[in-house]
Amino acid sequence: MKSSTDPVQNLAKLIACPSVTPAEGGALSALEAMLSPLGFSVERPVFSEEGTPDVENLYARRSGNGLHLMFAGHTDVVPVGDETAWSYPPFSAAIHNGEMYGRGAVDMKGGIACFAAAVGRYIDKNRDLKGSISFLITGDEEGPSINGSRKLLEWAKAKGESWDAAIVGEPTNPGKLGDMIKIGRRGSLSGTIVVHGIQGHVAYPHLADSPLPGMLMLLESLLYPALDNGTKDFQASNLEVTTIDVGNPALNVIPGKATATFNIRYNDTWSDETLMAEIHNRLDKAAGRRKLRPGKRAPVNYELIWRDRPSHVFLTHDNKLIETLTSSIESVTGERPQLSTSGGTSDARFIKDYCPVVEFGLVGKTMHMVDERVAIADLETLTQIYERFIADFFA
Amino acid sequence: MKSSTDPVQNLAKLIACPSVTPAEGGALSALEAMLSPLGFSVERPVFSEEGTPDVENLYARRSGNGLHLMFAGHTDVVPVGDETAWSYPPFSAAIHNGEMYGRGAVDMKGGIACFAAAVGRYIDKNRDLKGSISFLITGDEEGPSINGSRKLLEWAKAKGESWDAAIVGEPTNPGKLGDMIKIGRRGSLSGTIVVHGIQGHVAYPHLADSPLPGMLMLLESLLYPALDNGTKDFQASNLEVTTIDVGNPALNVIPGKATATFNIRYNDTWSDETLMAEIHNRLDKAAGRRKLRPGKRAPVNYELIWRDRPSHVFLTHDNKLIETLTSSIESVTGERPQLSTSGGTSDARFIKDYCPVVEFGLVGKTMHMVDERVAIADLETLTQIYERFIADFFA
Ligand SMILES: [Zn+2]
Ligand SMILES: [Zn+2]
Repeated sequence: MKSSTDPVQNLAKLIACPSVTPAEGGALSALEAMLSPLGFSVERPVFSEEGTPDVENLYARRSGNGLHLMFAGHTDVVPVGDETAWSYPPFSAAIHNGEMYGRGAVDMKGGIACFAAAVGRYIDKNRDLKGSISFLITGDEEGPSINGSRKLLEWAKAKGESWDAAIVGEPTNPGKLGDMIKIGRRGSLSGTIVVHGIQGHVAYPHLADSPLPGMLMLLESLLYPALDNGTKDFQASNLEVTTIDVGNPALNVIPGKATATFNIRYNDTWSDETLMAEIHNRLDKAAGRRKLRPGKRAPVNYELIWRDRPSHVFLTHDNKLIETLTSSIESVTGERPQLSTSGGTSDARFIKDYCPVVEFGLVGKTMHMVDERVAIADLETLTQIYERFIADFFA
Repeated sequence: MKSSTDPVQNLAKLIACPSVTPAEGGALSALEAMLSPLGFSVERPVFSEEGTPDVENLYARRSGNGLHLMFAGHTDVVPVGDETAWSYPPFSAAIHNGEMYGRGAVDMKGGIACFAAAVGRYIDKNRDLKGSISFLITGDEEGPSINGSRKLLEWAKAKGESWDAAIVGEPTNPGKLGDMIKIGRRGSLSGTIVVHGIQGHVAYPHLADSPLPGMLMLLESLLYPALDNGTKDFQASNLEVTTIDVGNPALNVIPGKATATFNIRYNDTWSDETLMAEIHNRLDKAAGRRKLRPGKRAPVNYELIWRDRPSHVFLTHDNKLIETLTSSIESVTGERPQLSTSGGTSDARFIKDYCPVVEFGLVGKTMHMVDERVAIADLETLTQIYERFIADFFA
């Protein structure tokens, strides 16, 4: 059982499992082997949905009668990229110059390894822990996130689980361990615009109707004016046009159709409903402004197709949870972390509907890159922070 | 020899040759067989250029001592498209309800068939013709037009040929035979814009630099304001954006590069040089207007690549030639044709550098379509018009 309290050994075992999303790759089994000896009962539900691969998940609980703390994360990792460019093989967990190399080292097998070690150490000292601790671990965070945390939370709730707080172990620190915790995340919303025109020959434009001038008007209306200027807790919402495509190779042909896709990262000025309404409103207004030719008006003929499910914006209002985590970090590192809502989405967007949630893990610098790696010293420091947080949470 | 004076028989022979560009398909041999008995000396130069297929062309001259009239055209045809959609096989020259079906029927084997018949009839009556008549026929008009009329004209000039006037037999009539002659054509100029940015993740737009807002600015500057309002002889110049492409399938990725292509059909307000300068000027001005972020400016990082060779604008100023053709048409049809500069480019853009040129042929309605066809009656009428034109030209 001793090994479970060593985050370095834990992480080496997890990195050795090639759990490139959506493969389980042995990673959940390795985690189960760490948790079972600590008194956790482990379940491994598999979720499926047509058109997506089946995904295995893990829910482990060590039950008591007090508060219930959830640790959430994922064992799936992004592909290794150019394997020959790695200094050490991406599933070798090689240690060099005080750093362990491997895909998932910081995103986020490292966070899981540290939390398991922290729980092991805490339980060693507190055999009579009254509270409950659970691990909610998915294999579908780097993939489409359809058969992952969302379904795992519903599944657990259906069998009667409830939680008082959650910590997500994603790599939240941009520079050094203890820099930053995430207390919220922007939402994400994507849509594709299709503009229909009439194909024709460039020499006879009056017989054709190019979709492109209309598409330019629609996209301008999305880009300008900016959606907002940010809020007390969040940076400004941002819309990016991610692609425009026509695919017409002929120099003498006016195309009949054009498509463009956009993604919005939005703050708490908006809900996904109010934001969708704003986008529809801007597009309809712009479409109606089109003059076809002198004296002839016709609105731009467009469709808007929302893509994926929106990721909801969230902000944690539980100041006690935030303060408990902040002071745990300060007591180990000597510095108070910045409270941030920046960066991409995380599975915390699902968890926030069940209990207050904050995010804190390793340093993200090398995540998703070749030579992803973690300082051995950071693994020990994060384990100490997590152990302190557990102690303070249940105190 | 009698058959050469029948445009219907001539056309049936030409349609039977599957001369889909750039294949000769027997079409030039069939034409040679019509012209040789009329006293034409025929040459068949083949031109080539790296990266393009070799193309066979035909130059036939019946020499005399007076004026030299050129008839110009092409025997290559566009692909048949969906062959199963044709009412009659596209190389069968089937006659049904007074119409002959076949690829090239109007564009423009029909014009060649009629001119050959007209020359045959005229020579039958005028054995002592003092002038010269030549056929300048290419197999590369529907293709890239690189190994066709341009090189054929240079080749002929190099061996001492010169001409007093030319008539191009393209289908110029939009509705009925005699509607319209072309006395000029707009020029054509194409370019591709590449905007370079920096790829990144949508959640971290400050680390990326999307090429798309800049591309929208550049394209707007090309579309507005309009290039001109037209001239006495020409409709307004028109710019079409023909494609915009990024090819980014990832909803969470800001792309690093975008391309767009445009084509301009321009009138005699411009030369290709002044128009290129105008485009460069608009793009540079728009590129410089970009504000990157509040307080940060950086011009749009773009390249402009001109595509193909520009097709020069031209307008025929030889009023005697125009009047000779117009009165020939009026004398046969009873109506004066409209003088037009509309529509696409034609090989007349090359010929205008050697002699005055006008264009007149069949009705273009079915050109490039499935079931391309010509009224038998039109073949006889066009032959009569051409014969009258030859007679008046040499009179
Ligand atoms: Zn992650
Ligand atoms: Zn043609």
